[in-house]
Amino acid sequence: MATSPNSPTLRSWIDIPLGSDFPIQNLPFGVFETDERGPRLAVAIGRYVLDLYAASQYGFFEDLNELGDAQPKVFRRRSLNAFLRLGRPAWRAVRQRVSELLRHDEPRLRDNEEAVRACLLRQSEVRMLRPTKPNNYTDFYSSIEHATNVGTMFRDPANALLPNWRYIPIGYHGRTSSIVVSGTDIRRPNGQRKAPDEAVPTFGPSRQLDFELEMAFVVGTSTELGSTVDISEAEDHIFGLCLFNDWSARDLQSWEYVPLGPFLGKNFGSSVAPWVVTLDALEPFRVAGPAQEPAPLPYLSQSGAHNFDVHLEVALTPTGGSESTISRTNFGLMYWSMAQQLAHHASNGCNIEAGDLYASGTISGPTPDSLGSMLELAWRGTRPVPLADGSERKFLLDGDTVTMRGFAEKDGVRIGFGEVSGTVLPAHS
Amino acid sequence: MATSPNSPTLRSWIDIPLGSDFPIQNLPFGVFETDERGPRLAVAIGRYVLDLYAASQYGFFEDLNELGDAQPKVFRRRSLNAFLRLGRPAWRAVRQRVSELLRHDEPRLRDNEEAVRACLLRQSEVRMLRPTKPNNYTDFYSSIEHATNVGTMFRDPANALLPNWRYIPIGYHGRTSSIVVSGTDIRRPNGQRKAPDEAVPTFGPSRQLDFELEMAFVVGTSTELGSTVDISEAEDHIFGLCLFNDWSARDLQSWEYVPLGPFLGKNFGSSVAPWVVTLDALEPFRVAGPAQEPAPLPYLSQSGAHNFDVHLEVALTPTGGSESTISRTNFGLMYWSMAQQLAHHASNGCNIEAGDLYASGTISGPTPDSLGSMLELAWRGTRPVPLADGSERKFLLDGDTVTMRGFAEKDGVRIGFGEVSGTVLPAHS
Repeated sequence: MATSPNSPTLRSWIDIPLGSDFPIQNLPFGVFETDERGPRLAVAIGRYVLDLYAASQYGFFEDLNELGDAQPKVFRRRSLNAFLRLGRPAWRAVRQRVSELLRHDEPRLRDNEEAVRACLLRQSEVRMLRPTKPNNYTDFYSSIEHATNVGTMFRDPANALLPNWRYIPIGYHGRTSSIVVSGTDIRRPNGQRKAPDEAVPTFGPSRQLDFELEMAFVVGTSTELGSTVDISEAEDHIFGLCLFNDWSARDLQSWEYVPLGPFLGKNFGSSVAPWVVTLDALEPFRVAGPAQEPAPLPYLSQSGAHNFDVHLEVALTPTGGSESTISRTNFGLMYWSMAQQLAHHASNGCNIEAGDLYASGTISGPTPDSLGSMLELAWRGTRPVPLADGSERKFLLDGDTVTMRGFAEKDGVRIGFGEVSGTVLPAHS
Repeated sequence: MATSPNSPTLRSWIDIPLGSDFPIQNLPFGVFETDERGPRLAVAIGRYVLDLYAASQYGFFEDLNELGDAQPKVFRRRSLNAFLRLGRPAWRAVRQRVSELLRHDEPRLRDNEEAVRACLLRQSEVRMLRPTKPNNYTDFYSSIEHATNVGTMFRDPANALLPNWRYIPIGYHGRTSSIVVSGTDIRRPNGQRKAPDEAVPTFGPSRQLDFELEMAFVVGTSTELGSTVDISEAEDHIFGLCLFNDWSARDLQSWEYVPLGPFLGKNFGSSVAPWVVTLDALEPFRVAGPAQEPAPLPYLSQSGAHNFDVHLEVALTPTGGSESTISRTNFGLMYWSMAQQLAHHASNGCNIEAGDLYASGTISGPTPDSLGSMLELAWRGTRPVPLADGSERKFLLDGDTVTMRGFAEKDGVRIGFGEVSGTVLPAHS
């Protein structure tokens, strides 16, 4: 019987640096290109990527019936979408086979010098691309701490949570066209801003540029319009998870958002990490979420552990300065689970599509150093965040780089998410 | 010099029924298929569609340099997107050539019996498809009458318009996956509903299913992320316009929409008409919109006529019953123009993509019989709408068919939009 690719005892013949996000137990999927190689799918291992198209050409997946006649071309694409559409048996078969090929005691790839040269590239030598082409992007609002903080700041501390919040995994549709891969600079947006004490709005650069620490799940299995997803089967539709920064211009947002929700305060850019960690790899890290009170309506009711224990952190690096970690929190704190989000989303018959991104909303913890946005960390500008270089921040300045990282760890195995990073460019004049 | 395809004196050798939406001056674009022919682009003429792929194979576009090496394959696609990406010179060249081929005094196609049989199909013999694959769909809220009515009903009649409304063409991102072509049935959604006098929400079929009469513009020319669109050039990005029904479940919407906007109350389905009327064909129908007070900020400031005089109507047909026209209004009434919507949308650097749909929001006029939704026509259920069969409606019933139509007319030329129609199916139990 095949060894589980999650087994803590597995070792690779590839040297994995201590603390690497990408041991043999992880094997996240992404898309890369180089000057010589067009876009191709890959799996991360240690400091390397394994080129799945090259591996396919060496016949390493030849006997995987789960791929049907899709290989090798499914591995030579600009996004994971076509691979996702093959379904979970195919995802699992490829991850299992890659795990086997990389095991310390498996010579097939290890001892084929030519194949090693063709299939393994240093991560520093490749350009990672946006992992999926999302046809749809939904942003939820599922951290009770975040929703409470925002409600306290902008509405009423005594009634910070709106009446619908504990019944509905609140979400809204975001913009897909402006989702970019980690490393892409983010231009500070211009827009309408009106402070409460100003009579009329003015147009100009946002003065309250912010990040939002989020995780997004990638849908792998589509549904038909008019059909729903039973909560007990919701996770079957999820391929994996990645880090996500939902950049926000708070001043644009607060002036525009009534009554139809955030728009230009959000859609100037969102950053996604290049590596999608499979739900399979995260299986050992299930945890129960917070108790839900009142109990969710039956279509959102679930028992068992449907959250994932992922440590998260946000670092800020000023131009030419050193990095300061400004927040540490955990994805396991989310009030609404991904399964609940997805079952809710499809409960009216709305169809979901392979490659879609569904982001969690800002992930904030209960303490002042575990908040997932600058808005909350600096509490609307009232307690500026100190940085290592002696400066402080109420919101982001031009030149600031925001980097988010995450990992799960247990039994000596660290399943990392890599990072999602972006640097703020000055607004166009 | 070539005759303008808009000239009222043009006549076709094809018999155009009196009152047809599709005279030779219109020539809207769409996508069709039959059992024998895979998806292909087409132009509507009278009772027929002109198969552009077939026409291309007969060499009728051979000399159009604007098409580069894109033909004939650009005409054998499931959406207009690839054709749109060719740019306005290509759109114009094809429309001009089709106009020439269909002129009463032009024998090239007319006298080639075989080509006529290959290129012209009765509309009744083809299945029309969704005209574009929208990567993004934005719904605006640009009728001052509609926004005032909704504000009056749900908030405060004395302050019906929110403070931002006269400064911002308010909009939000909608769902692309559930946009379907006219003729597709719409399943009544289930969802959470909570009446003001109920303590907790329940889950079940929407009791307040509604339509929204809208027009959507199709973007033909993309922009890069981070770039903006000057208002004076905004119309250059627009390919054309089509009818759009933004079905809405008012009870789901009113419970879920704070603070992030409409979600499941909208994304169970939106219906788009199959024919996109080019902005070129609508050129003779420009009108000035309502005066804007206060004056828009400079980036939204424009002079001249940027609205379009399009008569619109909504008809409702109960199961087995006859059709009742329940609303008549005009697209020229919109407070915010399409150019203003687009310039605003891109003002923060958000990129727009060819094939995107940008809907107007509900189009309501100033009188009780010119309102664009059942919510307004029946004024939140307080004045039920009488139908021809003696029944009345507060909201839509299962089996109801809603059909929207539109046309512009001047100098004996009628530029019609066809129709967007859909029938309500009962909710899944």
